[in-house]
Amino acid sequence: MADTSIEQRMAAAIAALSMDAVEKANSGHPGMPLGMADVATVLFTKHMKFDAAEPNWPDRDRFVLSAGHGSMLQYSLLHLLGFEGMTIEELKRFRQLGAKTAGHPEYGHAVGIETTTGPLGQGLGNAVGMALAEKHLAARYGSDVVDHMTYTIAGDGCLMEGISQEVISFAGHQKLGKLVVLWDDNDISIDGKISLSDKTDQIARFEACGWRTMRCDGHDMEAVDRALTEAKGSDRPVLIACRTTIGKGAGPKAGTSGVHGSPLGQEGIAAARQALGWQHEPFEVPSDVMEAWREAGSRGAKARGEWEDRLSASSNKAGFDAAMKGDPADALAALKQLADKVVAEDAKVATRKASQNCLDVVNEATTLTVGGSADLTGSNNTKTAELGILDAENPAGRYVHYGIREHGMAAMMNGMSLHGGVIPYGGTFLVFADYMRPSMRLAALMGTRVIYVLTHDSIGLGEDGPTHQPVEHLASLRAIPGLKVYRPADEAETAAAWGAALSYQGPSVLALTRQGLPMVTKSAEAAFANTGAYVLRDAEDYQATIIATGSEVEIALAAADQLASEGTPVRVVSMNCAEDFLSADGTHIADTLGTKPRLGIEAGIQMGWGELLSLGGIKWDFLGMESFGASGPYQELYEHFGITAKNAAAKVRALIEGN
Amino acid sequence: MADTSIEQRMAAAIAALSMDAVEKANSGHPGMPLGMADVATVLFTKHMKFDAAEPNWPDRDRFVLSAGHGSMLQYSLLHLLGFEGMTIEELKRFRQLGAKTAGHPEYGHAVGIETTTGPLGQGLGNAVGMALAEKHLAARYGSDVVDHMTYTIAGDGCLMEGISQEVISFAGHQKLGKLVVLWDDNDISIDGKISLSDKTDQIARFEACGWRTMRCDGHDMEAVDRALTEAKGSDRPVLIACRTTIGKGAGPKAGTSGVHGSPLGQEGIAAARQALGWQHEPFEVPSDVMEAWREAGSRGAKARGEWEDRLSASSNKAGFDAAMKGDPADALAALKQLADKVVAEDAKVATRKASQNCLDVVNEATTLTVGGSADLTGSNNTKTAELGILDAENPAGRYVHYGIREHGMAAMMNGMSLHGGVIPYGGTFLVFADYMRPSMRLAALMGTRVIYVLTHDSIGLGEDGPTHQPVEHLASLRAIPGLKVYRPADEAETAAAWGAALSYQGPSVLALTRQGLPMVTKSAEAAFANTGAYVLRDAEDYQATIIATGSEVEIALAAADQLASEGTPVRVVSMNCAEDFLSADGTHIADTLGTKPRLGIEAGIQMGWGELLSLGGIKWDFLGMESFGASGPYQELYEHFGITAKNAAAKVRALIEGN
Repeated sequence: MADTSIEQRMAAAIAALSMDAVEKANSGHPGMPLGMADVATVLFTKHMKFDAAEPNWPDRDRFVLSAGHGSMLQYSLLHLLGFEGMTIEELKRFRQLGAKTAGHPEYGHAVGIETTTGPLGQGLGNAVGMALAEKHLAARYGSDVVDHMTYTIAGDGCLMEGISQEVISFAGHQKLGKLVVLWDDNDISIDGKISLSDKTDQIARFEACGWRTMRCDGHDMEAVDRALTEAKGSDRPVLIACRTTIGKGAGPKAGTSGVHGSPLGQEGIAAARQALGWQHEPFEVPSDVMEAWREAGSRGAKARGEWEDRLSASSNKAGFDAAMKGDPADALAALKQLADKVVAEDAKVATRKASQNCLDVVNEATTLTVGGSADLTGSNNTKTAELGILDAENPAGRYVHYGIREHGMAAMMNGMSLHGGVIPYGGTFLVFADYMRPSMRLAALMGTRVIYVLTHDSIGLGEDGPTHQPVEHLASLRAIPGLKVYRPADEAETAAAWGAALSYQGPSVLALTRQGLPMVTKSAEAAFANTGAYVLRDAEDYQATIIATGSEVEIALAAADQLASEGTPVRVVSMNCAEDFLSADGTHIADTLGTKPRLGIEAGIQMGWGELLSLGGIKWDFLGMESFGASGPYQELYEHFGITAKNAAAKVRALIEGN
Repeated sequence: MADTSIEQRMAAAIAALSMDAVEKANSGHPGMPLGMADVATVLFTKHMKFDAAEPNWPDRDRFVLSAGHGSMLQYSLLHLLGFEGMTIEELKRFRQLGAKTAGHPEYGHAVGIETTTGPLGQGLGNAVGMALAEKHLAARYGSDVVDHMTYTIAGDGCLMEGISQEVISFAGHQKLGKLVVLWDDNDISIDGKISLSDKTDQIARFEACGWRTMRCDGHDMEAVDRALTEAKGSDRPVLIACRTTIGKGAGPKAGTSGVHGSPLGQEGIAAARQALGWQHEPFEVPSDVMEAWREAGSRGAKARGEWEDRLSASSNKAGFDAAMKGDPADALAALKQLADKVVAEDAKVATRKASQNCLDVVNEATTLTVGGSADLTGSNNTKTAELGILDAENPAGRYVHYGIREHGMAAMMNGMSLHGGVIPYGGTFLVFADYMRPSMRLAALMGTRVIYVLTHDSIGLGEDGPTHQPVEHLASLRAIPGLKVYRPADEAETAAAWGAALSYQGPSVLALTRQGLPMVTKSAEAAFANTGAYVLRDAEDYQATIIATGSEVEIALAAADQLASEGTPVRVVSMNCAEDFLSADGTHIADTLGTKPRLGIEAGIQMGWGELLSLGGIKWDFLGMESFGASGPYQELYEHFGITAKNAAAKVRALIEGN
């Protein structure tokens, strides 16, 4: 095989580095890098627009390895192309603690990784979100400034996951013509042949969703090249089914699930070296191959220079730069103004409606926000008058009808945030956070700035019953490291929560009520201090502290009234964000909670409250839910489940007496 | 409209009762019942095989209202057909606290409701599971004993949810010819026209997944009848796209999202009465219409009688009866035997492997179990030698290759359990419980006996890194009321956990390790007592109690050794199920935890531990995870995150000194 072309040898370098690294780590997935090395070589040498020296060039093509277990494919590429930091030593440290070469591609670990993948289907959703952001920003700032492709490599697993249907049907609807999915069509999954579990005609399925589709032999580099060339002119998203052999060349196990997730072993590696015509030492890349790769890595420098010139000449430069910077300062100022106003007005309003009032000022003050809802627009109160509909006919619109696709929405929001230029927010019912959870976890892991507007946040939603009433959701969301859960008690706190969420470089949940709540905040300043919890009502010689969140703050205040009338003064604390509160300094926490017995109130389960309430070894109790909810008018449900001022007062009395 | 047929008047009765009940409740969804009344009438009067007097007849056709918000359609049907308890008073109490007529259909609330629906797409998944159970049981016990259809009404929302792709592609693969999906193809979702968010060609999509498809006018009862008649002979699952008008007849709002989820109001109701030719008082059904409906309700009595005869004559009667009874006693006995044996053998084994050893004896001792995995068979260790593959060619097989469809798997397992005759268990990685969560919640709400085999349960999985390492999952699963989470420490405890899960009329998680664990149980009896936690090692004059779960029990014991060598005796408690422990009697809890300072150890977040450890106001500390994990060899990760015997011992010392 001495007369292999330079392109074939470049592909062989990917395959060799990948199998060598997996072998050295004695852990990892060689099958996919070997199977997709040819496709990746064509993509990165002939089609991808990027400049390895400027990995953050805003108009670069985006590449997402949705089949994240094939991480060595991406690490090999980053190394060969000359991305900063991806040294041969890092490849040798594949999957070792602290290496840039983590088991799956981790956003932020290595330069050039656009998103964290591994949980299947997520990368596909991210890619659709990136392509949506591109189309939106191109419409707003001009195609001289924004005009790039989004490519993703997806495996059978990505396509079998339900989320794929949500995002491919969405992409088809939006006519995201600059999105190309390279399907590693190798007919193999972990359990064996795909036919063990699936016989879907994927081509027909994608076409049913409005995609353009093509097939090619993924090992015929000219065919791959032709397909990619053709794909770039499409007015619809494109699926290229690349027929490949998993673990190509790796001896008898090639083409079977045996090469998916285990090192090839010396025998497999020897066979692969033979098949690849690659007789170099492990981790060794001959200089001509390396030079060719490095040339590919800098190929985009010229295009980048031209783009810089176009940007400088563009009348949209200031707007585009501001969008990419993403500073929400104007929105924050508007929210503070709103909070001052509503404290003075003292009106009763559901926090979902309060949130809409916030969005009215936010969406006017900044154009960064791109809102939406998973088909609950009128219930989530996520749309404001300023926002035109973002769709194929009006990509400059700022409101997305995501359809009944919670999971897809959350994955696409991650992609939009990672793309940059927008701050996505999206709504559904709090209980349906369960549908989005895999994407929310990745948002927390990556630190994407996305805001989930989750209304109907307790039994307070009433008649829809237990399938729609969150009970465990506040706890289960607080459990995700890095995700902030805001549960404001009134419109002023809602404004503060919106401000905090817009400012946080990570994901935030706004848990909002369906039912009306009175204005409890006396000073917008206190609500905006963003310390997570603050003393809403204090009392000299207070005998106990009641800590409540959201709609239960009203109940805490009523209990405090009742107790005060009996000569028992108590303090009331509104905790609008447990994460912010527990990360505040210890003095603030201790001062706020006080030293007297404590009662927590929240229309959810107790989990997590014990740790907080018992701080310092203080006596405590909790009033909340111990089971799923029920269907009925919400006032009756609060009575039925005993979340009442009367019961709160009784619990405080018992705490004080038992002290 | 005086010359409307009796069938039309029967349909009008559904529509009228539904809109009247929604109006009285001033809450609910009239659009779907009005739109699908014609289809439902044809289905229940001409096709569904059931006997209202014997709602639990095992061979009845199953009906699932996947579009659960249209609950009044089902309640009206149950009332008209004469199902026990669904009185006119219950219809008048629609959505009131304690009524059988909850906001969404709730399994167990009213006779005749096969599953709880509302969260979209779940019912569709349940229906596929029911059809799979039917096909499986028919193959095992004969089509003279098991031979029924499964029908489901699904809306656009169900089809847009990602889970729909997982279950329709699975149903197509399995050739579930006795499954019929009636799609309420009304072109409307909550936000407006479907075209706002989707342009999928659903017919083409279902065909791509191996379905037979038909279209009909959902208001042409003869056309619906023809379609259903044809559907019953299919060798593939059938989609019938029923073109309907949402809120048909209800004045100008008919055909718009305005009738989806709000009462029609007097004007809309008057218009609908006019359009329906229904000039009766609210909740009034004329006697001839009621008689016709009641006749439909008892139409199946004859078929049921014939079935009883066939069952009596069948050589499979004993086996079928036992399957429907579902008593796992034989499996429990086998597990106890296994536990005794492995305690004596004292081997080191990963609990995922221990689980496979358990399944070896379980699947031999009972034929109730139907196992599977979402394409991680070799990692979850869910397949045993006895189990043939359950597929279209071998429906009697007992192992399901679910494919990369965690969510669909969990929804289908619910359907299988609800159908009866099988105990489904299914595997994936613990971290991917997030993908299944909406179905797991419904399992807990309904109390379906399903077992999730969730392996790779901590950073102990090593190199795959944070995307695959559960950190918050034990807490977030324990948060779901009624879901039991078992985390056994060794093979004996794994056997006990399997026994408990098989015996529990609700869902159980088995959280299992990838890494090997030593045998720590000294007596299988103690592990099998099912009190959730027990003293594994006691010490006279113990100075502290260490409570650990699963793989961290080994660390707790090592810490205890270290402390004992320093002259500080400590007690070690293995808590294999927090739910069981906290529901045990108070004396057992107090006796087990003891009165000395307590340290909890678990390779997950602290959430939930504080409540347990602080019981009785005792000093406590916790050793676990405070962030996402990392990619690396697992031993290094335990060191890196400080979950070590050394740190545990230090924390115990600090607790004792500070006491």
